[in-house]
Amino acid sequence: MNVAEIKPRLLMGPGPSDVHPRVLQALSRPPIGHLDPQFLEILNDVREILQAVFQTRNRLTLAVSGTGSAGMETAVVDLIEPGDRMLVCVAGVFGSRMLDVAQRAGADAVALEVPWGQVFTAEQVAAALEQQGPFKLVGIVHAETSTGAAQPIPAISRVVHDAGALLLVDAVTSLGGMEVDVDGWDVDVCYSGTQKCLSCPPGLSPITFSPAAEEVLATRKTKVQSWYLDMNMVRAYWGSERLYHHTAPINMVYALHEALRLVLEEGLRARWARHLQQHLALKAGLERLGLRYLADPAHQLPMLNAVATPEGVDEALVRRRLLDEFDIEIGGGLGAHKGKAWRIGLMGESASARHVGALLGALERLL
Amino acid sequence: MNVAEIKPRLLMGPGPSDVHPRVLQALSRPPIGHLDPQFLEILNDVREILQAVFQTRNRLTLAVSGTGSAGMETAVVDLIEPGDRMLVCVAGVFGSRMLDVAQRAGADAVALEVPWGQVFTAEQVAAALEQQGPFKLVGIVHAETSTGAAQPIPAISRVVHDAGALLLVDAVTSLGGMEVDVDGWDVDVCYSGTQKCLSCPPGLSPITFSPAAEEVLATRKTKVQSWYLDMNMVRAYWGSERLYHHTAPINMVYALHEALRLVLEEGLRARWARHLQQHLALKAGLERLGLRYLADPAHQLPMLNAVATPEGVDEALVRRRLLDEFDIEIGGGLGAHKGKAWRIGLMGESASARHVGALLGALERLL
Repeated sequence: MNVAEIKPRLLMGPGPSDVHPRVLQALSRPPIGHLDPQFLEILNDVREILQAVFQTRNRLTLAVSGTGSAGMETAVVDLIEPGDRMLVCVAGVFGSRMLDVAQRAGADAVALEVPWGQVFTAEQVAAALEQQGPFKLVGIVHAETSTGAAQPIPAISRVVHDAGALLLVDAVTSLGGMEVDVDGWDVDVCYSGTQKCLSCPPGLSPITFSPAAEEVLATRKTKVQSWYLDMNMVRAYWGSERLYHHTAPINMVYALHEALRLVLEEGLRARWARHLQQHLALKAGLERLGLRYLADPAHQLPMLNAVATPEGVDEALVRRRLLDEFDIEIGGGLGAHKGKAWRIGLMGESASARHVGALLGALERLL
Repeated sequence: MNVAEIKPRLLMGPGPSDVHPRVLQALSRPPIGHLDPQFLEILNDVREILQAVFQTRNRLTLAVSGTGSAGMETAVVDLIEPGDRMLVCVAGVFGSRMLDVAQRAGADAVALEVPWGQVFTAEQVAAALEQQGPFKLVGIVHAETSTGAAQPIPAISRVVHDAGALLLVDAVTSLGGMEVDVDGWDVDVCYSGTQKCLSCPPGLSPITFSPAAEEVLATRKTKVQSWYLDMNMVRAYWGSERLYHHTAPINMVYALHEALRLVLEEGLRARWARHLQQHLALKAGLERLGLRYLADPAHQLPMLNAVATPEGVDEALVRRRLLDEFDIEIGGGLGAHKGKAWRIGLMGESASARHVGALLGALERLL
């Protein structure tokens, strides 16, 4: 098969999302060198727009040269030294992944769990911090892509900081599709992915470190275990020193630059409102079809709609027919939800009336 | 600045190299899902063509979701467990980087050094293996991008295997531009980058593991320290299981697919011959200008030409004028060669008579 022969799809899974033609156009510009003054100007822009999107003035804000999972690993390995204590809030697949990453980094990691689809209360986190603390770092996934639940970060942030710990937030699925306020919420390290609500192809992970996190990073006693993800070196390339570390993924940075410009042109608040509006339209339609959401309704994400597959319906067959007959991609359940759920994404360009209408029309015929 | 306003350059530095329009076209196709059957077909193709380009039948052959440095880290962290002994051959910046990566991975790492620009003899490596061994792994950079010297891998491979160690070869700069024969040379793990002689934008790192290396990986006592680069999990996505690990960088894989098709269309041997032919033309021209190569002439790489900046010439000023007045990028010296050398790349699409002619013409006016 030739790439030119690939049939396009409507991307309504858990990411990647559809990409604006302007972003694809930027992606296809001829590369230039990673130390070319023109490219450094693009990098500066990317940092500046990322600060606006993360709502932060953090100096150490950049895009890691890997997907969102590389961002997760960067956040953990840069802040954790062997034996450091970390509390990981687990309410789905991506919380479990963070626990695994922390253990591989040599953390003395403790899991705090709630059933999938539920959220943590600040009281639960405070109790764990008191009973099992002290901890250096607390990690939590803001928008759990496996369940569709949004965790209440501001309240959790207060108890984490009261206990003297740093807060690490995974905003892979939320950034650009709902409020993420790094400075307002006092988040110490926050990372995302490009292929969700930023609507850029997968391959980069925006990340930001608070001054407190930057200080922890700068005063480590041991080297970061990953050379590739060592922000003590990467920041000397993104910063004014412009020291060569690794070759930046030039064309992916082009694409992110254009995707971020589109976010600013729309406006953060308008973008969040659009995600919410399309979510409400989708939800009304899914409920008319008798489908039940898996997450706590009070904490349902707009951009990730996880619903139970109805009794007697072949989960995988419906997804295959959506893809084959309607060119629509949705996701299946992960982990405990495998074979029993669908995950419908409304992310970035895919959060549109056209997408919602096409999917509801197709599901009506298939169910 | 807008990406559309970027002035194109002739890329003649140490990478990225110029990219064929067909590759840019593939890069800009709309993404589809990482589990879409169409995308899985592209992945299978990429693996198959990578096997042809690496000249191997290794089953575990794929593209790591990061740049060449991520490939280096993958090779090391997947084969090394804490305390394992590794001999690292250091003859330039990238050998030093490998030593750093090995130490961060917890290896008991020993450096074997020769002066920059020199090559190792099999006897030197054999002596180190005998006097300081046993070692589990020996690492060496085939084409040292900081000096322009090619290491004699086949002879070194024999002594490494005679000593019962595995051989890790960095082919970031060599693959696609000169012979790299993974099976013929009995290399256990070999990785490259996309942005050198494969002429694809930076962002992926092709890698291949021999059955012996795969066995070491499969029978580890400890988890790979990097979750993102753990090939025990990544191979379950590239393999027939198709288990989700992380979201593949879809569009970069499109681009690599097309770049690899171009390599096969040209033919490996014809491609190596083209690199050599353009190198000889460049070398003759540089010598006419009185420039002196830094590497041992018997082991000069075709695709990376490191020359000393003439006495009294401002190294950085010449590079700046090449960029500003001629839109040509070449590289400066790294490490010990900083401020004293130029590194001229003839990689992939940039290994052309047009590129050589343009650079020699410009240098003639500037020197």
